[in-house]
Amino acid sequence: MHLNRTSFMLWKDVQITGGFWKKRQETNERVTLPAEYEQCVKTGRIESVKCLYHPEEDRHPRKGVFTIDGVLAENLADEKENGEKAVPRPHHYWDSDLAKWIEAASYSLAAHPDQGLEKQIDEIVDDFEKLQMEDGYLNTYYTVVEPGQRWTNVYTMHELYCAGHLMEAACAYYQATGKKKFLEIICRYADCIDRTFGIEDGKIHGYPGHQEIELALVKLYRVTGEKRYLNLARYFIDERGKQPSFFEEEALAHGRDPEEEGPKGILGKSFLPAGPYALFQAHLPVREQKTAEGHAVRVAYMGCAMADLVAETGDESLWNACVVLWKNVTQKRMYLTGGIGAKDGSERFSFDYHLPNESAYQETCASVGMTMWAARMLQIKPDSVYADIMERALYNSVISGVSLAGDTFFYANHLAAKPEMFSDAIITNPRMFPRRQKWFAVSCCPMNLARLLESVGGYIYSESETEFFVHLFIDSVTETVKENTRIQICQETQYPWDNKTRLIVTAQKPVYTSIAVRDPAFSRNTKVLVDGKEAEASLENGYLYLRRMWEGRTEIIVEFEMEPMYVEAHPCVRMDAGKTAIQYGPLIYCLEEADNGPNLSTVFADTAQKLTVKYEPDLLGGVCVVEGKALRACTEDWEGMLYRPIGSRFEEMTFRAVPYYAWSNREPGEMTVWINRVHTRTEE
Amino acid sequence: MHLNRTSFMLWKDVQITGGFWKKRQETNERVTLPAEYEQCVKTGRIESVKCLYHPEEDRHPRKGVFTIDGVLAENLADEKENGEKAVPRPHHYWDSDLAKWIEAASYSLAAHPDQGLEKQIDEIVDDFEKLQMEDGYLNTYYTVVEPGQRWTNVYTMHELYCAGHLMEAACAYYQATGKKKFLEIICRYADCIDRTFGIEDGKIHGYPGHQEIELALVKLYRVTGEKRYLNLARYFIDERGKQPSFFEEEALAHGRDPEEEGPKGILGKSFLPAGPYALFQAHLPVREQKTAEGHAVRVAYMGCAMADLVAETGDESLWNACVVLWKNVTQKRMYLTGGIGAKDGSERFSFDYHLPNESAYQETCASVGMTMWAARMLQIKPDSVYADIMERALYNSVISGVSLAGDTFFYANHLAAKPEMFSDAIITNPRMFPRRQKWFAVSCCPMNLARLLESVGGYIYSESETEFFVHLFIDSVTETVKENTRIQICQETQYPWDNKTRLIVTAQKPVYTSIAVRDPAFSRNTKVLVDGKEAEASLENGYLYLRRMWEGRTEIIVEFEMEPMYVEAHPCVRMDAGKTAIQYGPLIYCLEEADNGPNLSTVFADTAQKLTVKYEPDLLGGVCVVEGKALRACTEDWEGMLYRPIGSRFEEMTFRAVPYYAWSNREPGEMTVWINRVHTRTEE
Repeated sequence: MHLNRTSFMLWKDVQITGGFWKKRQETNERVTLPAEYEQCVKTGRIESVKCLYHPEEDRHPRKGVFTIDGVLAENLADEKENGEKAVPRPHHYWDSDLAKWIEAASYSLAAHPDQGLEKQIDEIVDDFEKLQMEDGYLNTYYTVVEPGQRWTNVYTMHELYCAGHLMEAACAYYQATGKKKFLEIICRYADCIDRTFGIEDGKIHGYPGHQEIELALVKLYRVTGEKRYLNLARYFIDERGKQPSFFEEEALAHGRDPEEEGPKGILGKSFLPAGPYALFQAHLPVREQKTAEGHAVRVAYMGCAMADLVAETGDESLWNACVVLWKNVTQKRMYLTGGIGAKDGSERFSFDYHLPNESAYQETCASVGMTMWAARMLQIKPDSVYADIMERALYNSVISGVSLAGDTFFYANHLAAKPEMFSDAIITNPRMFPRRQKWFAVSCCPMNLARLLESVGGYIYSESETEFFVHLFIDSVTETVKENTRIQICQETQYPWDNKTRLIVTAQKPVYTSIAVRDPAFSRNTKVLVDGKEAEASLENGYLYLRRMWEGRTEIIVEFEMEPMYVEAHPCVRMDAGKTAIQYGPLIYCLEEADNGPNLSTVFADTAQKLTVKYEPDLLGGVCVVEGKALRACTEDWEGMLYRPIGSRFEEMTFRAVPYYAWSNREPGEMTVWINRVHTRTEE
Repeated sequence: MHLNRTSFMLWKDVQITGGFWKKRQETNERVTLPAEYEQCVKTGRIESVKCLYHPEEDRHPRKGVFTIDGVLAENLADEKENGEKAVPRPHHYWDSDLAKWIEAASYSLAAHPDQGLEKQIDEIVDDFEKLQMEDGYLNTYYTVVEPGQRWTNVYTMHELYCAGHLMEAACAYYQATGKKKFLEIICRYADCIDRTFGIEDGKIHGYPGHQEIELALVKLYRVTGEKRYLNLARYFIDERGKQPSFFEEEALAHGRDPEEEGPKGILGKSFLPAGPYALFQAHLPVREQKTAEGHAVRVAYMGCAMADLVAETGDESLWNACVVLWKNVTQKRMYLTGGIGAKDGSERFSFDYHLPNESAYQETCASVGMTMWAARMLQIKPDSVYADIMERALYNSVISGVSLAGDTFFYANHLAAKPEMFSDAIITNPRMFPRRQKWFAVSCCPMNLARLLESVGGYIYSESETEFFVHLFIDSVTETVKENTRIQICQETQYPWDNKTRLIVTAQKPVYTSIAVRDPAFSRNTKVLVDGKEAEASLENGYLYLRRMWEGRTEIIVEFEMEPMYVEAHPCVRMDAGKTAIQYGPLIYCLEEADNGPNLSTVFADTAQKLTVKYEPDLLGGVCVVEGKALRACTEDWEGMLYRPIGSRFEEMTFRAVPYYAWSNREPGEMTVWINRVHTRTEE
């Protein structure tokens, strides 16, 4: 097998110059990042690293700084979820929140230097430095709340997960600013972890309960060149799921009953068909896992690390394992919108084809994870099956996670909403509430989204020595060097509101290389024009390859067939059987009550009639709306009946669909992605 | 307003002579009642009244008799639900289980004297007598587990609920055997309750957390003639939901925080839109309740009591309140199968038109309650809207609660099953498991079903002074007296497998009276033949009235139009929109995997083609199966896709539907009541 390794252009080497994503990034920088920082202040996250170090007690952090008063107490209500009492002390995942915010802010800094923002980061970094132990250990929770207990509950306490996010943040901040301090702090911590975990005698033979550090270690390896970070990542992946179970051994070693604590106790022994450790993908070694089980974000992050390791090591068995999991996810367990995780409660995958809409969990973080995973698969094998799903997640389930205004967020992204359905969720489970919220006690999603939005430039282009790939259609500029020749690639497009993109390729001197442009799955007839003339491009794995000598300025125009279309789900997805959804380019659409009135279940799309599309500059920040013909079931003639012999009367109507990502930005109301159909069988 | 009061013929005055219900009753007597008694022994329910009285400590019951060993310990596993530890001591609802079993057994005794069975009852009665306190108080839990705490938690502890079931049991046993002892014990208890609760100073101004005693008090009044029982029932109903809240006052009086205990604490303050006390129908006075809120069984029992009080008092405002609740239930919150309660967890009603199928709760007890409520509405106003729903519940959601063999039970009755869906329910919530179980820790349903099955004769006929009503079509014999003349009514029918019933009316001497036969809603053309000749019968409120002089033997044949038909749900029931279900006579049908293979979501009924019906004597105890034409979506041509542009291929198929009540009596598999349709619009 040929593992064709390519690399994405680094985010800071790609400038987003306008259009759809520029607007999202501007909102992210102007609104989201400051709002998130403010929440970190209000909830004590910033304070958790700032105040805890007590200067007179040198490296003996103060305990109990977080009393229920002042600015912290004020926001305790925000921290309540599921009726739990808020804990006015650093939570065991708070480090990861700060890290993801630093990472997002770093991406922003690279494009837009901002001294105030840089100072905010530097202050946190300074505090991290003070918190760091002599041996490099760096974790707020275990330094403050449970000193002396480090590495005793790697299973559930997110210690290695937080470390991973700190690594990603440090890499980003170093790459953005060139400042080394944070990176050095984090390398000391990575070295400490490397001395602690591994195959050697005297080390802990274990792996994290929540994957993240594995992909972060590969990143750290790539930035520093330190091979031991790569090896440690490989160790964590290879060790995962081996018998006897590390999770059980760890519990026993520290006096916990594995039957009672963790998911075994919480969820019941048979909760997951593959056993309780499947929630953590630790039921089997990764190469033996045939289906994507358990917590969706964990699976995606694990997939990222596995692909990264394949890229670095060429490990074929690991690549095969990646592909098996990827296929199970994307062919049987993924929402139309590219998101994953059908089950709330444990935020996990359900069984094949079980994809409920109103109760869809589809966590924002999991869609971020799908984007990252897809990109990593794509680096190994440039095949549009990966890029199509990367794009699908990005344009739909990722950005649905944040409001157009940028200040409220979805944790769960439902595919249908009936407001009465989760009316109590704001009390019992705010993550499921079908209206974006300012914050969540578990705030992974807003942070994760911010860092992805800010680094989207890093997902547009990749290259090998002899090829340059265009995966996404985003206004941007980048440069590559082929055969010692600089080539500038400048992309201009109105996509996704228009069906073409224009690439200006400017070669410093004549150079032979391949430029391969993705031919998206939705387009069944894509044209390529080079300098105005239709060009022969060879289609390989969903990419249109232009292999030629590039000289001076060349204009490539790629034109997709991009009509709004009705799509259907595999008939075993019983929630969607007999229904249809609307896709236009990469965008999935939905019906909202704001456009179509209430009781969306009474709308039956007439799929025999054509859909039309229209750009509405003043609607939802400027979107294409899609209109179609439908029949609406009359409700007036039921006269108090609830059931009757078939024979409904219908009225003709025109429905209006808006992009899914933009839903819930107007008045609250119903929404549905999947629409009933007048006829199930496609009309000839 | 005219409150036309009629009364049902007492169950013991109607002999079921054959056919559909005779078979069910025989299984009930031969298998179900002994199996339930056995479970009461195994789980300690019988022991709880037998052993607890310690003869040497005169009326000081022993505590702690129920240790985890011997026969009790053996069955603790059966008692575990939701991960709770089994409690090896009488539970606060165990008295009601014994009472319902006695009630069921009593109905059986009337028709089939059985000394062994009578002895079993007498022994329990003897034990109850010993348990009874000097002042008449009789409750095992508060006598044994929490002595001295009686009437301190009427809100949640089912004390009055158990009392109600004891009253119903005592009435039934007295009516069946003529023995007065149990009735006298229970009257002493009722008197004790009457001295304790009421409007007068010094009494508790309160009402039960779980309705039941209200309807039981009316029954006790009817059997004994003691008006104070009727008045107490009226007091409980009138007091319910008044402000300030009795539930809160009771909690405060006994040192409990109303915000933390009971549903307020458990479910969160805003769990129910109408507030936490709506779970108990105590959010508003009953006459101000406009929608059926909260726990479904409680609503049905409350409806029964309200109707009973209307029957006894002619209270028009109470009748209006009954009708308002009834309409909300039957027009917006009832399953096609006549059951109620869409939400698991709190076993409650959801919002209008919210009727999920796979997660339908539709508790068996709630369907029993619907039958009882419908009958009581019918006593006041002979209108087939009530009888149709009584019949719908009886033939569908009531008897689906027990297997054809009679030894396993459903607590929740789903309207669709996908085995993977609740694979973990056997651990986390056995009540939701889509396969009948031998027993439940909370065993209300098996007992409730047994008593209804055994008393079904009491739901066939009712009468006023001048009218005799035939509500159900069941082989049976009864007698009435009109104008001092005895009239025997003998009904012979193959219903529901045949479309007619034959009534032989034999008048001792010529007598003028009305015989009114229900014209069921499913029949759009019902014929009445009297002595072989088509007769003019006037149709009033869904009843065909034959007003005439009856002389000697008269044969009435009523012939329904009874074809299998496709039905639909109100289009606001979004789970059923675009789907259809099959009804044949009173029976709702379903597709099972056993007949149609897996992936029932791939089946699309072609409603333009006729359904056919065929009696299969060897299938499921003898049923009519319904067959229809459908298209089945191909799954072979998807080639790893999960979504694609519309254009599914279909294959023609013939599906086979079986009565819903009979599902899950073969190998486990999928089931669905609601079926996808090829065309939503009915073909002209």
